[in-house]
Amino acid sequence: MAQVKPSLAKGTRDFSPAEMEKRNHIFNTLRGIFRKYGYSEIQTPSFENLNTLTGKYGEEGDRLIFKILNSGDYLNKASEAFLSEKNSLKLIPHISEKALRYDLTVPFARYVVMHQNDISLPFKRFQIQPVWRADRPQRGRYREFYQCDVDVVGSSSLLNEAEFVLIYGEALEALGLKDFNIKINNRKILSGIAEVIGKPELIVDMTVAIDKLDKIGLEGVNKELLERGFVESDLTILEPIILLAGTNEEKLQALKEVLASSTVGLAGVAELEDVFAYLRLLDPNEDTLTRFVEVDITLARGLNYYTGCIFEVKTNEVQMGSIGGGGRYDDLTGMFGLKNLTGVGVSFGADRIYDVLEELNLFPTQSANATKVLISNLDKGLEKHTLPLVYSLRAKGIAAEMYPEPAKLKKQMSYANSKGIPFVWLVGEEEAQSNHITVKDMESGEQWALDEASAYEKVRVYMSDMS
Amino acid sequence: MAQVKPSLAKGTRDFSPAEMEKRNHIFNTLRGIFRKYGYSEIQTPSFENLNTLTGKYGEEGDRLIFKILNSGDYLNKASEAFLSEKNSLKLIPHISEKALRYDLTVPFARYVVMHQNDISLPFKRFQIQPVWRADRPQRGRYREFYQCDVDVVGSSSLLNEAEFVLIYGEALEALGLKDFNIKINNRKILSGIAEVIGKPELIVDMTVAIDKLDKIGLEGVNKELLERGFVESDLTILEPIILLAGTNEEKLQALKEVLASSTVGLAGVAELEDVFAYLRLLDPNEDTLTRFVEVDITLARGLNYYTGCIFEVKTNEVQMGSIGGGGRYDDLTGMFGLKNLTGVGVSFGADRIYDVLEELNLFPTQSANATKVLISNLDKGLEKHTLPLVYSLRAKGIAAEMYPEPAKLKKQMSYANSKGIPFVWLVGEEEAQSNHITVKDMESGEQWALDEASAYEKVRVYMSDMS
Repeated sequence: MAQVKPSLAKGTRDFSPAEMEKRNHIFNTLRGIFRKYGYSEIQTPSFENLNTLTGKYGEEGDRLIFKILNSGDYLNKASEAFLSEKNSLKLIPHISEKALRYDLTVPFARYVVMHQNDISLPFKRFQIQPVWRADRPQRGRYREFYQCDVDVVGSSSLLNEAEFVLIYGEALEALGLKDFNIKINNRKILSGIAEVIGKPELIVDMTVAIDKLDKIGLEGVNKELLERGFVESDLTILEPIILLAGTNEEKLQALKEVLASSTVGLAGVAELEDVFAYLRLLDPNEDTLTRFVEVDITLARGLNYYTGCIFEVKTNEVQMGSIGGGGRYDDLTGMFGLKNLTGVGVSFGADRIYDVLEELNLFPTQSANATKVLISNLDKGLEKHTLPLVYSLRAKGIAAEMYPEPAKLKKQMSYANSKGIPFVWLVGEEEAQSNHITVKDMESGEQWALDEASAYEKVRVYMSDMS
Repeated sequence: MAQVKPSLAKGTRDFSPAEMEKRNHIFNTLRGIFRKYGYSEIQTPSFENLNTLTGKYGEEGDRLIFKILNSGDYLNKASEAFLSEKNSLKLIPHISEKALRYDLTVPFARYVVMHQNDISLPFKRFQIQPVWRADRPQRGRYREFYQCDVDVVGSSSLLNEAEFVLIYGEALEALGLKDFNIKINNRKILSGIAEVIGKPELIVDMTVAIDKLDKIGLEGVNKELLERGFVESDLTILEPIILLAGTNEEKLQALKEVLASSTVGLAGVAELEDVFAYLRLLDPNEDTLTRFVEVDITLARGLNYYTGCIFEVKTNEVQMGSIGGGGRYDDLTGMFGLKNLTGVGVSFGADRIYDVLEELNLFPTQSANATKVLISNLDKGLEKHTLPLVYSLRAKGIAAEMYPEPAKLKKQMSYANSKGIPFVWLVGEEEAQSNHITVKDMESGEQWALDEASAYEKVRVYMSDMS
């Protein structure tokens, strides 16, 4: 066996026990909330047939899909012409028929179409799995990362949109965030705006420009609008819309006036009003609605894809891009031949949320499931005293371990420290003879000589304080 | 977008909500027990550098590793000679530098070596992740499947071996299995046997032959031993060992006599005795030891790899190969330049355990986290009565959903049925006016007109019966 100095593949990460605790904290929190709202988990395979994925993400997307080399004599049927011209692109389908999942959306669409006879609509699913992209790695951008998607297909009710707003609010609050915005817009409002200006064909140019308001300011947006085919008189109509201010209700009222001549625009406003009405019924304190929801007509997000409400979530506690987004789409499964199935869904940016919680120090310091007690191992002769303690702790459902071989106490303490174990139970000759345990609290450094029952009590109190 | 009739890549599977519940039941049960014994979770990336993986699994293994095609103009630097001769094998390193994980062992070794300065030994980790193999798919064999490994490195104490026996016993009992064997052997006993016969160089031939006792019987084993270089007088020595019967204690006693002249053989017996002594201290009722543990000297399992104790688990309730196995190894990390780090570990065959539980009908019928109440949606005008109920249920931590749009009651019932929702709360005009809920128990078909408090009480009783 050749010896290799080991390294990670570019753009990938190992997750240590401490990192896994934190990641699982996020995923389990989200899972619990998704389930409370009636969503069920599914999983799809890591790789799909190449033709399931290609053509779905644009040319650049196709390039970023990781292709898997066929097994065996994969060159056997490859075109000699492509080989001799070294035509990398054209050779791909000759030597690769599978590819790694690029997102969770296309596999979900495939899942719905393939299992359409087994699932009953509306189908409410969530999916938390890694995806892979051959992007150039950089800070915060990885080639393997988790996506976390919640979608319902087969229901056009705006109740679903309202529930996604609540899911965002409840999930982010459960993770400890206090100040964030759930921005909401509607594609139909954007269409209506383009319509009242009389340039419906420029809707994409318009949204691309006004989407940049945050970054380039009104002047910048206006400049870009002019470059993209709008004229000064259009800007006069657009300006009050772009600078729309006030409460959500005031914004919707203003939009109704501006969009009075556009049927589609008014339909978009009415949809937002319906979502708000659902929010009031589903959240009697209007907590989420008043604290977090913000109508933002500059929000566009993948306009070619979304057909109704559009969402995006940003935290105001840390400098960070959006930590979630989504919306209503009307033709998810059309690419696989199942037409007119409407759906709406949102996703959570798990890696960004991780960084936010880390920066705000919001992760639980202690894991509910990790080892609570390390039993010392000072001498083989003491095992008959110590091992029954290990047994009893575990029998009580308490995670416990004995240091597996006799070693210097300092080494055992440092093991407990590095693993974040809150208690060390020291049992030496003296303790064994007097039937006591020296219990050391690893955080405070305090220690007490206790009988067995009192030693358990210390752990019990600690664990009930945690929960 | 070209329309594609969707299909799964060969050898891969989708997991439906019901299947995910069952899989999570297995994984969460195992996770809980691993943690109770002081093991922490890690994860490694799905793909590794190709040279991290190649050369670790033999020639056949190398062939079964899924290689990932380099991105961009991957043919640019490929050897023209290999291209024109269509040399698939030699071209691989020119066009692929990454490959999908083939097992969890090699990535774990890489992890330990790369993070040796961050982890404190003994390092107790578990890992539950998919692996990929380009095997020909067949019944029960997939190209993507989960492995579930628990290992400790950096401790030679046999306490670890004893704890793995307990982990197997506790995990399989927690999953509902009642009749299984945790077979245990020791590589040193096998060496000792070859030594007393005077043919230590034939140890591999010997173990390969006696490993087949179950399948080909004593005569078959003897025939094969003769073909592999043993002579009749060797068989006379081997026969009582192969046919070793009685209790574990009787077997160990007999082995001590047979192996009296072999230091290594006696060391192997002594190790098993130590493991048993630990089991008695760690499990005062000796429940696992007496009910499940079986000394089996025909057990070999990857002899080139293991150096001490060897484990294998089989269920007796269903016809099925081994559902777990493992052992002590002494040079896991040597392939990456870190020598002499001992370790011991076991794995659980999650897919086989799934099939066993399915066949024995051992999966919980109801998920603790899935929707408990579907609220009917008979008319938009009733939403002001129904949505506050959805809110209250969720506020009490009960998973609940309303059918998202008004629909025929039959359709809503069938939705609840297909999702396994235990209660439907029907709220029509009459219920709204009289402030009652018609609660339907979907399993029994019974229904009652209840006030809100009594309706919650029904759900509460149901949920406390589950747990």
